[in-house]
Amino acid sequence: MTTSNNETNQQLTPTQRSKIKRIPKRGNYETQVIYNILDEALICHVGFIANNQPFVIPTAYGRVDDKLYIHGSPASRMLRTLDRGIEVCVTVTLLDGLVLARSAFHHSMNYRSVVIFGTATLVNNTEEKSEALRAFTEHVIPQRWKEVRQPSKQELEGTMVLSLPLTEASAKMRTGNPIDDEADYDLPVWAGVLPLQRVAGKAIADDRLVAGVEVPDYVKNYVRNNGLRERE
Amino acid sequence: MTTSNNETNQQLTPTQRSKIKRIPKRGNYETQVIYNILDEALICHVGFIANNQPFVIPTAYGRVDDKLYIHGSPASRMLRTLDRGIEVCVTVTLLDGLVLARSAFHHSMNYRSVVIFGTATLVNNTEEKSEALRAFTEHVIPQRWKEVRQPSKQELEGTMVLSLPLTEASAKMRTGNPIDDEADYDLPVWAGVLPLQRVAGKAIADDRLVAGVEVPDYVKNYVRNNGLRERE
Repeated sequence: MTTSNNETNQQLTPTQRSKIKRIPKRGNYETQVIYNILDEALICHVGFIANNQPFVIPTAYGRVDDKLYIHGSPASRMLRTLDRGIEVCVTVTLLDGLVLARSAFHHSMNYRSVVIFGTATLVNNTEEKSEALRAFTEHVIPQRWKEVRQPSKQELEGTMVLSLPLTEASAKMRTGNPIDDEADYDLPVWAGVLPLQRVAGKAIADDRLVAGVEVPDYVKNYVRNNGLRERE
Repeated sequence: MTTSNNETNQQLTPTQRSKIKRIPKRGNYETQVIYNILDEALICHVGFIANNQPFVIPTAYGRVDDKLYIHGSPASRMLRTLDRGIEVCVTVTLLDGLVLARSAFHHSMNYRSVVIFGTATLVNNTEEKSEALRAFTEHVIPQRWKEVRQPSKQELEGTMVLSLPLTEASAKMRTGNPIDDEADYDLPVWAGVLPLQRVAGKAIADDRLVAGVEVPDYVKNYVRNNGLRERE
């Protein structure tokens, strides 16, 4: 899902807002860790302020190196009036498992999340926009882009794309077993982790599919999860 | 996952901020539709404003009738100073499938989402807080609560819970096949839907499990998805 293979891992500098304050040992600021989470997840939740009111909208995205491209339509009304960009918080969350402890209090979830802060700006350059649309499609389903009809000039113009630099961001994750109070380990209560995965079912062909067109391998063999992560 | 079975379906009144403006036919304001989505999803994304900056934090939640209880720790720093509650936007998203069109432009996803607006207030009443903690656990894994050690007074006090009324909310969903441009239906490109599901793997017992404790059936048979929804 990564769009570039020659990335070097970097450590982002935590800022006042990107620094993990609650359970800091779960935090991580390495770009490769952040990129891996962004590349595996399918949607992000974009937070912005309009009329002094917070909005959180799920939307599609793609990554090209250290830029996140967001489908701009959710924020479209506002964006038309904001030439200088808009302050956003973009959050991506992968759920890896339910953590079942012996006490109600210590129940938890295993997850990997990324929170990005910054100013999202409208992409106006046609070439960059085209590249962003390619990133959207390839992010969702690699190998798809080259097979489908490419965007027309009108479609390109009609799509609102936001660009957000991946410079102020942090990852946070929890893995492994429940952590119970010492006294509770003697309780005869089942405890452990129930791993969760996102799996693809059998592809359902469109009713109007041209006769003889086969399901492509990249659809048939689609994989979008952390595989045996919880079992490692 | 529903905590009450005697619910009557109601139509919420759309407000300026909860009304679906983009593709309004995908919107729905029925409480039963909204509750079903909330009951199936496992985490929500809470948006709030701090220092004129939007924050979006993933967190656990539970529903009791027309109230959403949110684990308050993500917003804890801010909440301590806000006795009158905090304005939030809480969004929950379920991804049901990838919609693969013949053109890049018409690619989409099938999803069900809920967006809730309102003022979240701290739950101080011990009885309500205890009920909220039960809702958190039962929301994640039904039948678990009665088996585990109940919260101590100290644990109850140490848990921050927010309550949000489910009165200003909307659901939005997309289902079914891609909608291509008429001219594109002749293209020999595979098109259709790739259904996505969240499935549970095999439960992994904690290393310190008391000998002889079996995996409970509600763990072994855990189901958390829309089943054959895409195939109907």
